[in-house]
Amino acid sequence: MERFAAYVESQRSRFLAELADIVRIPSVAAQNRGIDETASFVEQRLRRLGAETRLLQADGGNPMVYATIGNGSRTLLIYDHYDVQPAEPFELWQSPPFELTERDGKLYGRGVADNKGNLMLRIQAIEAWLATEGELPIRIIFAVEGEEEVSSRTLPAVCREYADLLRADGCLWETGGVDINERPVVTCGAKGIQYVELVARGASYDLHSSYATFVPNPAWRLTWALNTLKGPDGRVRIPGFYDRVRPPSAADLAALTTIPTNDEELLADFGLDEFLDGLRGLDRLRRHLFEPTCTICGLVSGYTGEGSKTVLPNEARAKIDFRLVPDMEPAEVLHQLRRHLDAEGFADIEIIDLGGEHPARGPLDAAIVQAALASAREVYGSEPILYPTMAGTGPVYPLCTALGTPVASGAGCGYHGTRVHSPNENIRLADYWRAIHWMGSLIRHFAG
Amino acid sequence: MERFAAYVESQRSRFLAELADIVRIPSVAAQNRGIDETASFVEQRLRRLGAETRLLQADGGNPMVYATIGNGSRTLLIYDHYDVQPAEPFELWQSPPFELTERDGKLYGRGVADNKGNLMLRIQAIEAWLATEGELPIRIIFAVEGEEEVSSRTLPAVCREYADLLRADGCLWETGGVDINERPVVTCGAKGIQYVELVARGASYDLHSSYATFVPNPAWRLTWALNTLKGPDGRVRIPGFYDRVRPPSAADLAALTTIPTNDEELLADFGLDEFLDGLRGLDRLRRHLFEPTCTICGLVSGYTGEGSKTVLPNEARAKIDFRLVPDMEPAEVLHQLRRHLDAEGFADIEIIDLGGEHPARGPLDAAIVQAALASAREVYGSEPILYPTMAGTGPVYPLCTALGTPVASGAGCGYHGTRVHSPNENIRLADYWRAIHWMGSLIRHFAG
Repeated sequence: MERFAAYVESQRSRFLAELADIVRIPSVAAQNRGIDETASFVEQRLRRLGAETRLLQADGGNPMVYATIGNGSRTLLIYDHYDVQPAEPFELWQSPPFELTERDGKLYGRGVADNKGNLMLRIQAIEAWLATEGELPIRIIFAVEGEEEVSSRTLPAVCREYADLLRADGCLWETGGVDINERPVVTCGAKGIQYVELVARGASYDLHSSYATFVPNPAWRLTWALNTLKGPDGRVRIPGFYDRVRPPSAADLAALTTIPTNDEELLADFGLDEFLDGLRGLDRLRRHLFEPTCTICGLVSGYTGEGSKTVLPNEARAKIDFRLVPDMEPAEVLHQLRRHLDAEGFADIEIIDLGGEHPARGPLDAAIVQAALASAREVYGSEPILYPTMAGTGPVYPLCTALGTPVASGAGCGYHGTRVHSPNENIRLADYWRAIHWMGSLIRHFAG
Repeated sequence: MERFAAYVESQRSRFLAELADIVRIPSVAAQNRGIDETASFVEQRLRRLGAETRLLQADGGNPMVYATIGNGSRTLLIYDHYDVQPAEPFELWQSPPFELTERDGKLYGRGVADNKGNLMLRIQAIEAWLATEGELPIRIIFAVEGEEEVSSRTLPAVCREYADLLRADGCLWETGGVDINERPVVTCGAKGIQYVELVARGASYDLHSSYATFVPNPAWRLTWALNTLKGPDGRVRIPGFYDRVRPPSAADLAALTTIPTNDEELLADFGLDEFLDGLRGLDRLRRHLFEPTCTICGLVSGYTGEGSKTVLPNEARAKIDFRLVPDMEPAEVLHQLRRHLDAEGFADIEIIDLGGEHPARGPLDAAIVQAALASAREVYGSEPILYPTMAGTGPVYPLCTALGTPVASGAGCGYHGTRVHSPNENIRLADYWRAIHWMGSLIRHFAG
């Protein structure tokens, strides 16, 4: 594939300009910004590639850009998303989050790692294939959704309604890249999630804090309610929460032993002396991949500005995500949470359902998994790491598991320092170019 | 005092314009805004009255405007403050907080009730006295500080350094007005306070929330730490916290029985079905005036915007005030808090000291108390209510108790609906004019 490489080399500045163009649109799903504009950008780019495109939508959700291109006995479904996380807190960014900025061999911008970089490089790899190798040896379907960062709210409905359009022999997941040891990573599943906001309410307006002698304080109510969810031992106290947790299979555990742990590097990077409970090595990895969580993602009540303000807040809010493992059910967790709060005396606390997703774990021996591994070996010259699942969440269940499609991540530009979801999200330029080659090689290996 | 009344009547529009002028300066001490400008405004206004003025300062704090005017055997110290609470959240104001706005017989603006209204009306009452009654029959000292809303940080040092300038036979406190039954109120003390910010820290930056399996979450640490301070039973769990609480005296309790409670009106106004623990009547009042509190005034961590963001926060903060009753010591509470958090396993949580003030309760039979009551009776035509203490906080201890000066509130334009410290802070115009008369009458009664 020397011509492929030469072509990519010749198109570098145009490819990066395209990436900058899509980063520039602040497609923050949680804030309903730039959605249609970004969908249109992606659709037009896929048309320029020669794909047939359409927008799929259900229940008034953000449109999924759907595209097909190529022919072959095997069909590859490529799943990406064009929405991004909020960029707040803005003041911690060293350059404006929606202006792709190059510094020290890295590209900074909200969404450049999650997931606009992978989306663009996969499209660009196919362009390079068509320009240098001719026809595609497989049929490729793109499914590029716009609600990944808000729990893929309407994706399950889209998958049900357009199941026939989405069936494939394998799915290339949105994520991909190298780990902290620069070894390529392939994953075969994702955790699920249930995201909620808890709201405690007090008086009808903020009061002078001297009234705290006899007026209920929602910030205390929320604190006490949260404390019933999880204590310092880290165990979730909601009855039934762990009942459906499926233990890892023998194959899952065998894969685990091939994964390097790099405790020291992680500790240094995160600025920590110790992990929770002093976890290390395989124990940490096992908990990371196969156990559910209950995480406070946000807290707000009363006065949060500079200095002191003696106020008795009239409202307190907590954002919480539960990461779920097979065979937990998001709706069931929601139900258990309500029942638990009621039983603990917190029936007054409102639960806002901000979306749920099923967990999923696919077969490790599928063709797409083997193609992802073989192409990684070829391009990176090192043995890739196979993860039975990501610790993160994605709609693997409705898009793959429910349709019987095996899944693998790969052909992406991620690395350990991407800071996805955080300020100063970034990718390394070298990873971007290498991932285009990974994608090209993956097409060839998946064709068989 | 018919000529006094006629003079006030003739100056109404000028007096209100002066009030608007001082409200316009956003003197938010917590944010270090408009301090010098407001101090200068107050000093110039007092000079126009004919007072001798100077600025008193200690430890680099905001200047206290000090002024003296008049002669007489008795000296009255008038304590007010020119700083205000932050106006946030701005979006809940129906008119801009720093533009005095009249609606339905009320004046809206940050600080109009707490405490710029009382400051201006007292100055204007003295102007009316001088214009209509001639010389003042007493000596009046103004002590107008600029840090009341940030726990009067340097006032104790000013009081120590300038004790000789501040001695008086009685002190008219900043607050004053009528209660929910339109009866004038006189108070003889104030609770103390210890304000702190607790900070829990985790990784060196916000992480993707999937890491919650093994990375400590400061929002959980803070929640658990807060939970050790106070539980749903409302008792503060910090060892030693209640040790110094002085039980109310017989005179305090006797005064209590003359105070109307108005539970139903308060419940309706606050939009509540019940008070804490179902408290009512005297029990509620007794707890309100004679018991300390521990109040979460603010909470913030992670993502607090719209929708969901799956983030593991790297920091969590809580603002907490402890309202103290005699003979609790702010520094001791701070020390107890640190010892308690350490003992409970939260040595990692930082405590930021945002200021403390001693509680104070003065004699109920002092001349200034009797003058405040008599003048209230005269102007309002109803029996005033005598509170042994406010539930709120002010620097009564350094300014009065430590110098042996009895204290009373009164001659103010407060009413039940002022919403001090909240959005839409307001006074009623009619109260403003009446309080000017209260001030005039108080001068006469205090002269003896």
